[in-house]
Amino acid sequence: MDQPVLLTGAGGRVGQAILGHIGDAYDWRLLDREPLPDEKIPASVDRTDVYVADITDETAVKNAMEGVYAVIHLAGDPRPEAPWDSVLRNNIDGTQKMFEAAVEAGVEKFAFASSNHAVGAYETEERTPDMYRSHHEFRLDGSELPRPSNLYGVSKATGETLGRYYHDHYGISVVNVRIGNLTQHHPPREYERGQAMWLSYRDCAHLFECCVEADYEFEIVYGISNNDRKYYSIDRAREVLGYDPIDNSAEYTFEGEPLDEA
Amino acid sequence: MDQPVLLTGAGGRVGQAILGHIGDAYDWRLLDREPLPDEKIPASVDRTDVYVADITDETAVKNAMEGVYAVIHLAGDPRPEAPWDSVLRNNIDGTQKMFEAAVEAGVEKFAFASSNHAVGAYETEERTPDMYRSHHEFRLDGSELPRPSNLYGVSKATGETLGRYYHDHYGISVVNVRIGNLTQHHPPREYERGQAMWLSYRDCAHLFECCVEADYEFEIVYGISNNDRKYYSIDRAREVLGYDPIDNSAEYTFEGEPLDEA
Repeated sequence: MDQPVLLTGAGGRVGQAILGHIGDAYDWRLLDREPLPDEKIPASVDRTDVYVADITDETAVKNAMEGVYAVIHLAGDPRPEAPWDSVLRNNIDGTQKMFEAAVEAGVEKFAFASSNHAVGAYETEERTPDMYRSHHEFRLDGSELPRPSNLYGVSKATGETLGRYYHDHYGISVVNVRIGNLTQHHPPREYERGQAMWLSYRDCAHLFECCVEADYEFEIVYGISNNDRKYYSIDRAREVLGYDPIDNSAEYTFEGEPLDEA
Repeated sequence: MDQPVLLTGAGGRVGQAILGHIGDAYDWRLLDREPLPDEKIPASVDRTDVYVADITDETAVKNAMEGVYAVIHLAGDPRPEAPWDSVLRNNIDGTQKMFEAAVEAGVEKFAFASSNHAVGAYETEERTPDMYRSHHEFRLDGSELPRPSNLYGVSKATGETLGRYYHDHYGISVVNVRIGNLTQHHPPREYERGQAMWLSYRDCAHLFECCVEADYEFEIVYGISNNDRKYYSIDRAREVLGYDPIDNSAEYTFEGEPLDEA
């Protein structure tokens, strides 16, 4: 499309995974709370399209939202152990402000970075570690109620519910992507859970490109690569969004490769 | 039990429905943001057990929670049209503060007043008004994802998710009661939706008594009377809580009765 795509939290890990692979695909608007160094901005993006603002700053968000076709909303406190006050403000209140600005501006599509932590407490002591292994049949598919593993997960589940409301009430297309374990170059090592929910950088970028391109109403999908081991279904992402991941954590053997479990 | 039961929002409509019917059943602690007039306090409750405090006041809540067996948490902004800032503070942040204080104090059970507005957007134009009528088969049973009709409903869905987290993480028993249309004396008149989700005062009191008495882990139930017309299932409330409602909106003919659609 000709209209811009707004990416919030552009300087974070997910934002950089996206920009590193599809940085030339759109007329980007980038927003981040911190000033972005040059190496985090694709060469095709003009400095005037980079906004330094907190997402709870309604005026700044309104300016960044003007004329935008789709929003990829990643900004927020990304720490699973983040305290309540921070996720209440940055993740819950901030996401509501983003949705308000998006429907006000007539944005068509809104992709929200949810998290595996919205459903982390399905990983009970009875199920683990078996559920992290390929023979196990337990699958989550996005139709299940949230079971957050922490208050960060509560905040992500709330962002999903805000999306449900703004879709139902205003008609904006909303997709919640429950992002798994995003690492660059290779899957996390000696961490079965992370291997089962691994999301490679290029699959991450491809998935969010699908969120901009596909037609949908309201969706909850899992954002992981095509791992042999998985307890998250990617069927819905394939069917509705056309997601077609190319990576698989089972194909890595870690011979002589650097660790990256960030 | 010998330990007190803490009732927040005691002066509100749900609180008064409860106290009007089971005001002598427990050693109550009552909490409300506004001072309670004498007529709102059961004769058996000592004035020293009545707390005037905002639920976001952590010190006051901590004091009120000391030694408590069960919490019935009704306090919050009850307006379906309440603005975001109010439900963010009073319903979302306030409920998190209540849960924190409850697990800190070792409370056994926590009943949360959720709302039909957490799922109000299932009532689509395609389904209504047929779904308000007894021949229609559409039923919600508490296993469905939230579909809030407003930001108040988002806040109630978030309270439910907080309950899921605090149960999973701390073991406290949590029941979310999606309260229907509570009116005194008789069902709402000329309002099919309200008749389908009617909850009488005595059934309301009985249901919350069940929430104090029954054994459960984590539940989402619908709080309505045994109406002929209903699109909310009360099967789970019957099975797990022993809820046995005695009223039914279909039994009312409104001959010469006063209106009460409050």
